[in-house]
Amino acid sequence: MKKICVVITNRAHYARGKLVLKAINEHPELELQLIVAGSALIDKYGNIMTKIEEDGFKINKKITMLLEGGTPTAMAKTTGLGLLEFSTAFENLEPDIVLIRGDRYEILAPAIAASYLNIPLAHIEGGDVTGTIDESVRHAVTKLAHLHFATNELSKERILKMGEIPENIYNVGSPDAEFLNSQDLTFNPNEIWKGETIGVGERPDLSKEYLIIIQHPVTTEHKKSKEQTEETIKAIHELKMPTIWIWPNVDAGTDELSKAVRVYRENTEQNHIQFVRFLDPTLFAKLLKNAACIVGNSSAGIKESSFLGTPAVNIGTRQQGRLKDKNVIDVSHDSEEIKGAILKQIKNGNYNQSELYFKPDTSKQIANTLAESKIKVQKRLNY
Amino acid sequence: MKKICVVITNRAHYARGKLVLKAINEHPELELQLIVAGSALIDKYGNIMTKIEEDGFKINKKITMLLEGGTPTAMAKTTGLGLLEFSTAFENLEPDIVLIRGDRYEILAPAIAASYLNIPLAHIEGGDVTGTIDESVRHAVTKLAHLHFATNELSKERILKMGEIPENIYNVGSPDAEFLNSQDLTFNPNEIWKGETIGVGERPDLSKEYLIIIQHPVTTEHKKSKEQTEETIKAIHELKMPTIWIWPNVDAGTDELSKAVRVYRENTEQNHIQFVRFLDPTLFAKLLKNAACIVGNSSAGIKESSFLGTPAVNIGTRQQGRLKDKNVIDVSHDSEEIKGAILKQIKNGNYNQSELYFKPDTSKQIANTLAESKIKVQKRLNY
Amino acid sequence: MKKICVVITNRAHYARGKLVLKAINEHPELELQLIVAGSALIDKYGNIMTKIEEDGFKINKKITMLLEGGTPTAMAKTTGLGLLEFSTAFENLEPDIVLIRGDRYEILAPAIAASYLNIPLAHIEGGDVTGTIDESVRHAVTKLAHLHFATNELSKERILKMGEIPENIYNVGSPDAEFLNSQDLTFNPNEIWKGETIGVGERPDLSKEYLIIIQHPVTTEHKKSKEQTEETIKAIHELKMPTIWIWPNVDAGTDELSKAVRVYRENTEQNHIQFVRFLDPTLFAKLLKNAACIVGNSSAGIKESSFLGTPAVNIGTRQQGRLKDKNVIDVSHDSEEIKGAILKQIKNGNYNQSELYFKPDTSKQIANTLAESKIKVQKRLNY
Amino acid sequence: MKKICVVITNRAHYARGKLVLKAINEHPELELQLIVAGSALIDKYGNIMTKIEEDGFKINKKITMLLEGGTPTAMAKTTGLGLLEFSTAFENLEPDIVLIRGDRYEILAPAIAASYLNIPLAHIEGGDVTGTIDESVRHAVTKLAHLHFATNELSKERILKMGEIPENIYNVGSPDAEFLNSQDLTFNPNEIWKGETIGVGERPDLSKEYLIIIQHPVTTEHKKSKEQTEETIKAIHELKMPTIWIWPNVDAGTDELSKAVRVYRENTEQNHIQFVRFLDPTLFAKLLKNAACIVGNSSAGIKESSFLGTPAVNIGTRQQGRLKDKNVIDVSHDSEEIKGAILKQIKNGNYNQSELYFKPDTSKQIANTLAESKIKVQKRLNY
Repeated sequence: MKKICVVITNRAHYARGKLVLKAINEHPELELQLIVAGSALIDKYGNIMTKIEEDGFKINKKITMLLEGGTPTAMAKTTGLGLLEFSTAFENLEPDIVLIRGDRYEILAPAIAASYLNIPLAHIEGGDVTGTIDESVRHAVTKLAHLHFATNELSKERILKMGEIPENIYNVGSPDAEFLNSQDLTFNPNEIWKGETIGVGERPDLSKEYLIIIQHPVTTEHKKSKEQTEETIKAIHELKMPTIWIWPNVDAGTDELSKAVRVYRENTEQNHIQFVRFLDPTLFAKLLKNAACIVGNSSAGIKESSFLGTPAVNIGTRQQGRLKDKNVIDVSHDSEEIKGAILKQIKNGNYNQSELYFKPDTSKQIANTLAESKIKVQKRLNY
Repeated sequence: MKKICVVITNRAHYARGKLVLKAINEHPELELQLIVAGSALIDKYGNIMTKIEEDGFKINKKITMLLEGGTPTAMAKTTGLGLLEFSTAFENLEPDIVLIRGDRYEILAPAIAASYLNIPLAHIEGGDVTGTIDESVRHAVTKLAHLHFATNELSKERILKMGEIPENIYNVGSPDAEFLNSQDLTFNPNEIWKGETIGVGERPDLSKEYLIIIQHPVTTEHKKSKEQTEETIKAIHELKMPTIWIWPNVDAGTDELSKAVRVYRENTEQNHIQFVRFLDPTLFAKLLKNAACIVGNSSAGIKESSFLGTPAVNIGTRQQGRLKDKNVIDVSHDSEEIKGAILKQIKNGNYNQSELYFKPDTSKQIANTLAESKIKVQKRLNY
Repeated sequence: MKKICVVITNRAHYARGKLVLKAINEHPELELQLIVAGSALIDKYGNIMTKIEEDGFKINKKITMLLEGGTPTAMAKTTGLGLLEFSTAFENLEPDIVLIRGDRYEILAPAIAASYLNIPLAHIEGGDVTGTIDESVRHAVTKLAHLHFATNELSKERILKMGEIPENIYNVGSPDAEFLNSQDLTFNPNEIWKGETIGVGERPDLSKEYLIIIQHPVTTEHKKSKEQTEETIKAIHELKMPTIWIWPNVDAGTDELSKAVRVYRENTEQNHIQFVRFLDPTLFAKLLKNAACIVGNSSAGIKESSFLGTPAVNIGTRQQGRLKDKNVIDVSHDSEEIKGAILKQIKNGNYNQSELYFKPDTSKQIANTLAESKIKVQKRLNY
Repeated sequence: MKKICVVITNRAHYARGKLVLKAINEHPELELQLIVAGSALIDKYGNIMTKIEEDGFKINKKITMLLEGGTPTAMAKTTGLGLLEFSTAFENLEPDIVLIRGDRYEILAPAIAASYLNIPLAHIEGGDVTGTIDESVRHAVTKLAHLHFATNELSKERILKMGEIPENIYNVGSPDAEFLNSQDLTFNPNEIWKGETIGVGERPDLSKEYLIIIQHPVTTEHKKSKEQTEETIKAIHELKMPTIWIWPNVDAGTDELSKAVRVYRENTEQNHIQFVRFLDPTLFAKLLKNAACIVGNSSAGIKESSFLGTPAVNIGTRQQGRLKDKNVIDVSHDSEEIKGAILKQIKNGNYNQSELYFKPDTSKQIANTLAESKIKVQKRLNY
């Protein structure tokens, strides 16, 4: 049995990666090891421990590692602490492969720990191009990783160009798109909130056209977090449409961003916006599919929305360079531009489903590749 | 004044990088900040604090961070600890650029700390290809770095291929070659040891043909350290030539390697080998220039020796892929092969000076580029 | 010049310790070194960097070290991280004495770092007896410290009983009481808020009788934080008096406590409570002196209020065992009990000034003792 | 089942604590959890992993945490790293009680981690009085611990005086004495070395009168390590008796001490001294029982030797204050004094067995107490 250690450091990691965990768990030659760490353990960012256990996965190790402050230093130290702890975890769990995903800053910790311990590293979502520190993190991880699961053809080619060995690079499609494809997304606006406790305040009327907002700080511009957020708030405030606003990730700039949201919330009379910390992934998928528009700078506005055909307004540099379909309109941090683009998207209505990020059997392909691949620990640039 | 923070984590870093420090120190628009960390602070690996201060440099910060054990876990944790500490150091020193060099595992710590704190990162010696974990570290650093000082044309091209922006990549030649070129390497075998305390045991007669051995562990093969070292020892023992054996770096496998050397030293009657921990860089250069052959897997056997024309026998995979001139013979970990290659090199004698790694004014070019470059903190893959 | 390194890890540390910093700064034989760390650097807990610099102190080093989560593990890791960082800081700053204060969990970090580096440790506020983890921390620090500045006679005696050497134990009174004594506490209810931005929401009418609430989590009972807080909220809600509620420290249980407050604030129509994060110390002193009653479990309700004669209702075990004057009524976590005690205190009105914690020239005595004391680094139990 | 987590950070911890592990393992109401950390994992200090597993204990977790350098900073950082890691370990293992032993600097790490996580802490060997940093560590641990297993009556009384609660303090005797009492110590000088690989060099003739040397650095005097060691070496060199010299612990000063030994060993013609890193505990007991004298500053020269009646010469301040029987002569770091005392002890010959540190059933008493005690997590000074 090959031991595959999957690292989850973030609520979204889990939501989007569930099918991969399942495919590994069910593969006859693979044994799943699960480490839950960082913001995934923090209640206010949506502690997912209970959900994971309800879904039937065993957690092998919890790692408390998130520093407070929402500053670049806090990000760097969270990663340093993670590196210390993942080293111990891997030394004790002795996995055959470590599997990580994405480009959040803290994943360099398990990436380095695995590399230095001579444990082959597999990485989902390499080769994309975006803004923020994620851009540096993602490609650095590619240079440490042995097995690359790109989510689209363009990214696969970029990984190849960066000098990785062709037989270790796969385009398996995005687990996010696969997840969406696997869900019953029937939408009943009157039943949607039932049994969910998703935040304080009145709930917006989803039988009308509504918006979803997800705006993360851009770490490389973290000092502008407040003003960037205020532009989005201004646009949304003026539109007065029912809106679901989802809290940001924990990055440098999060505190300024959250503060801007909080100041607005506490000082402004409004009852059309519902602020939520964390949504069950299926619920989120339903809401996204039926939204008039998703607004902000989350990759959900590029990847998931392309598959669902949801119109998207993408603000600023965070997703700059990422492969986009025509459902996305790019705008800068300007409330008028944002408002204009939203109105244009609403007028346009839904787009056709895009196959840019979709392939069938993404998770099974990942599991099979993990089971079959023979990896050479010593890496070598392919030119 | 631009503040340039140079990180030194290793005795060899300092020895080879002195001219760069000097050029920064003397540049009218640059202010040098110096952090000395890791094995550079440990007496038994050649504490260089005193030498640095004698050379007139001010040390802004010392960071104790090296874990004991010579294991992959110790390497990973040293890096994690370094990441914590460099974050604090950079937050407090507020440099405009961080300058690092090479590919030792611990340099990912200052590289990540600088990136995450949005401080531009400059890197000397990117783009080379070798074996061991250094190969992964080097390219991961390239993906985090903003300014690349390659030491040869081939490496410059590789950095370009990896997607870095052309105007940020320079081939400035190797600071090692520049350093050698700047020294008076006149050799008087009778005076060479004068005033130097370089280790215990009898000193070999350097008026005869002599060997220099530097063999580091290969972290990706760290469990074979003992047997790999024993092959080298066997060859050297049988040759009975005057030999200077320099202790290895602190990597995974160091303890096994050192133990093999120690067992040999304590159990075998011999007086032709002098074991030394650290040599003054000028003394080392003189010894290398006049050596009949350098043996092992140090980059000194590829880079410095090519410039000096010293015959070299390169053992195993550690330097696999690195740009080599004809003064190098590659062999595997086999005492007979090693012995054979050494004898062949001795017979051949010295080679012509190679310009593969040499360019005039390396250090000045680095300093000028640091002073003039306008760096965009947000990185972006160039394809 | 003796270098005295003062460690500040908490907004309250600074507010209360300013006179000590000043006395050290002004002493002809002492040089002040200042390290600001932990929650003192976090905006949402009241970043005090600007205030410190406005007050004319130079900050030698900032240390980001606070883990998020408000859990026991986060407390322990914050301390671990602090221990790593204070070791580096002390190794680089080379103080002659490290001065710390109080019993918050993170002060074991500088205490151990100083001890292990053979730097004499001076400690203010040892010998008190209370509940929560502070009780263990405080006495452990006493066993590491070389110089003890107790704030009252009883505590001085306890330190002696614990086996510390008599000539190193001083009762200098409390810096808090000294600080209060030094301030002009004239109170004008209409001008009090002027120029202060202290939080969102309407400001309570302070020309009427008003309450101050400070309730911290009890780490050893951290799972009861929510229900304990709800009892206090219930009592305050029913009294409908103008109330200033000050946010708690960052300890295990903080998040649950804050959540209970937040849920109340967002779900209940009320305009008599003002929630504030941090108050300027002089403003706080004025408010406390004129409050009808201080309620909760802060030491301010025991120490400062005794000096000011303010009636206090002390809830639960957190201050159990601490030396109290007759201005304090102890109650358990029961809304009826709390309400009853508050009403009783309001009826009673102000008490006479207590001298339990007051001595003139506290700060000067501390500075003089630091300057004159000859400390033996090797500790020895005095029986 | 109560889960008892035992922490082993040092080869000697294990050797001496085996019976305690066994008693916990065999107790019907206890479940043993074992963490092996620090120098116990480092080969050159005597990696004991294999021995532990051969003895039938399951290791729940390994923690690499030892910093290199043998400096005060390295000690402090090892402890800081340990605090981070033990927090994770305890959070994941969820023990009911953590059991630690002794006074080595790194045990403050598990002590704080357990306290802060509200896990009751049990401590063996509190209340002793000695020199070096151990003195501070030991009493600080007592103030964090809930259950105290003193090894002698005097120490029990001291713990009581320090304000601990009487019903939580037990004098159970020393596990070391119990261990000695349980072993067959029959000595056959010709068979003693059989099958043991204990170091390089010739083996001394143990049919003659022989010495055992164990000299550790004194962290509070770590800059004198070299000269202190040279005095001992001088005395031993001149006596020319068969000698077994056991390498020191890893503390501040270790490197200087080891260097002094190494310089002597490599530069001096002698064949009467055998240097060894680690001895099997039973073998050590046999050697100690039959030694003409034990010399140095190890607690083995005070505790074990008193029980065995072996004459001891105790050098310097490290054991100052520890309860001693008449088999010990105290001397200062002076080669003449040391030599004189050794000769006097040899002349005197063996002493009677002392009961100072011995009680029958030490381990069973510890296990039973762990099983039966009801511990209140909230500590409180008992006066």
